[in-house]
Amino acid sequence: MKDQLRYGIVGSGALGGYYGAKLAHAGCDVHFLMRSDLDAVRRGGLSIKSKDGDFHLPHVNAYGAPEEMGVCDMVLVCLKTTANAALPALIPPLLGAETTLVTLQNGLGNEELLASQFGARRVMGGLCFVCLNRTGPGVVEHFGHGVISIGEFKGPPQDRTMRLVTDLQRAGVDAKAVQSLITERWRKLVWNIPFNGLGVAAGANVAEVLGDENLQAAARRLMAEVIEAAGKQGYAIRGDFIEQQIERSWPMGPYHSSSQVDHEAGREVEVESIWGEALRQARAAGADTPALELLYSLLRRIVSASSHS
Amino acid sequence: MKDQLRYGIVGSGALGGYYGAKLAHAGCDVHFLMRSDLDAVRRGGLSIKSKDGDFHLPHVNAYGAPEEMGVCDMVLVCLKTTANAALPALIPPLLGAETTLVTLQNGLGNEELLASQFGARRVMGGLCFVCLNRTGPGVVEHFGHGVISIGEFKGPPQDRTMRLVTDLQRAGVDAKAVQSLITERWRKLVWNIPFNGLGVAAGANVAEVLGDENLQAAARRLMAEVIEAAGKQGYAIRGDFIEQQIERSWPMGPYHSSSQVDHEAGREVEVESIWGEALRQARAAGADTPALELLYSLLRRIVSASSHS
Repeated sequence: MKDQLRYGIVGSGALGGYYGAKLAHAGCDVHFLMRSDLDAVRRGGLSIKSKDGDFHLPHVNAYGAPEEMGVCDMVLVCLKTTANAALPALIPPLLGAETTLVTLQNGLGNEELLASQFGARRVMGGLCFVCLNRTGPGVVEHFGHGVISIGEFKGPPQDRTMRLVTDLQRAGVDAKAVQSLITERWRKLVWNIPFNGLGVAAGANVAEVLGDENLQAAARRLMAEVIEAAGKQGYAIRGDFIEQQIERSWPMGPYHSSSQVDHEAGREVEVESIWGEALRQARAAGADTPALELLYSLLRRIVSASSHS
Repeated sequence: MKDQLRYGIVGSGALGGYYGAKLAHAGCDVHFLMRSDLDAVRRGGLSIKSKDGDFHLPHVNAYGAPEEMGVCDMVLVCLKTTANAALPALIPPLLGAETTLVTLQNGLGNEELLASQFGARRVMGGLCFVCLNRTGPGVVEHFGHGVISIGEFKGPPQDRTMRLVTDLQRAGVDAKAVQSLITERWRKLVWNIPFNGLGVAAGANVAEVLGDENLQAAARRLMAEVIEAAGKQGYAIRGDFIEQQIERSWPMGPYHSSSQVDHEAGREVEVESIWGEALRQARAAGADTPALELLYSLLRRIVSASSHS
C-alpha cells in the first residue's frame, strides 16, 4: 500500500466535512466532492468549531464533479441515504483497481447497495457516534462524541481497515476497528429505532420517552424486536443489551435524537435506511416485529406529510 | 313497568341531543340535563337536521342541574368519557329504586364505572354507529347511519332492554338488542382501534390506511391484537372478522373517523376509553399487544401535546 492514501469525501455536509477536515488537518491527502458549499469552501476554506478545539483549513481540495476529483484510494461515502440514487453517477470516476469505498451513512443496507453496484470486495463501513451540525457554508459545529467504528462489509478487519483507523486516530478521532460491522449496525439500531423513531412520531426526547411508562415500554418492545430480527440473521445480541441501553440513556436527559432534530428543522428523515430496511430484513428473516411495522408505517406518513407541507 | 318511562339524558351534546330529540319527537317523556346549550334550548328548543328529515322541538324539558331534573326511570349517559369524573355528582339525584343507567359512551370501561358507583344491576349500555355533529347551540346535524345496539351489562336482554329498543324503534331509530354487550364493544374496537388511532397518529383517513400497504398491515395487526385481547377474556371473535372489517371499510373511501375529526377540530380525543382501557384489559388478561401498546403511547403524547398548544 502507498505511504499516503488519497482520500475522497463524497457528500461534504456535516459528516463528510468534519471527518474529512480532521484528516486533512492531520496532514492526510483529502479531496472533497461538494455541491452547495463548493464556492464558499473554495473562497474561504473549511471551519470546524469543536469542543475539542476549533480549527480552520484555508485551502481545501474541493471539487464540483467527480471527474475533476479523479481516482482515490479510499472514498468516504457521507451522503444522506435519501440521496443514494446519486451514487451510480458519483462513484465510478473515483474508482481505480484498488479503490475502497467506506460508507459512513446511517442505518442498514448501505454496504449492500455499494456492493451490488461496485463489488463487495471494495466495501467497508463505519458507524459514527457523533453530534454535528452544519451551521453555515463550510462551517461545521461539533457538539460531542466523535467515536467511529470501522469494519469490513464481509469478515474481520484487514490491513486497509487498520490503515483508516490509524489515520483517523492520528487525526484525533476516537476510531476503532470492529470484528462484525453488520452486528454493530444492528446494535446501533437497537437504540436508534426506538429513540429516533419516537422522537419523530411522538415528538418525545430521550428523557420524555424514559419518563413515560407507556413510551418506555414501547421502546423496550421495539428494542426486543430489533434484537430478534438481528438474531434471526445470525447477528447475535444479548437480551440484557436492552437494559444497558435504557441505563445509558438516562444520563442523556432531554437529548433530541438526530432524526428528531432533522424533523423539527424540516429536514428529511432517513426513514428507509433505518426503519424501512430493518423491517424488510426482519420480515425476510421471519422475525415478528409488529411494533416496528406500526412505527415505520407512521413515520412514512409523518415524514411525507411534513415534506409536502 | 310504567306505561311511559321518564327518560333522562345526561350530557346533551350531539349524541344525547340527537337520541333524546328522536325519543321526544315520538312522544316519549324526555328530560335533558345540559350545560352550555341550556339557555339557547330553553329559548328556542332543539333542532335536528337529518338525512332522514329535519325536525324542530320548540319546547324541551331542559335543566341545568340534576336536582331540578329529579328521578328518572331510564337515564341515557351521553357524556364524553373524558368528563366521566362528573358522574358521581350528576347521577345520584336521578336515581330511584328502579332507575336504569344506559351508557351510550364510546369504548370500554363505562359500564364497569357505572356499576362500581351505582350497582351493576342498574347498568345497561349501547353502541352507537352514527355520524353526528353539534353545529350550534341546540342544533345537531345527523349525517348518516344511526344504528344503536342495546344490551345489558351482564347477561342477555331483559324486559327493560326490549322496552328501550322498542321506544327507539318507534322513534325511527334502527335499534336492536344484543346478547353480549361487551363482546359487541370489543367487536367495535376491532375497527375503532386501528382506524381511529391511525386517523390521529398518522393523519390518515380510511382510504389512506387501506391504500398504504404498511398502514394496512399495521391496521390488520392491531385488529388481530384486539381480537386476541377479547378472546383471552372470553369474548370470542372469529379471525375472519379482520377480513370483513377491511372489506367493509373500502366503500367508506376518504372517511375521517370520529377521533380524527375531533383531533383535527382541536377537540379532546377519548384516548383512555378506547386505547388505554383496551390495553389495560389486554395486559390484565395476558394478551400480547405490542402494536396497541405503541399506538396508545403515541396517542397519549399527540393528544396531550395538541391540548397544550
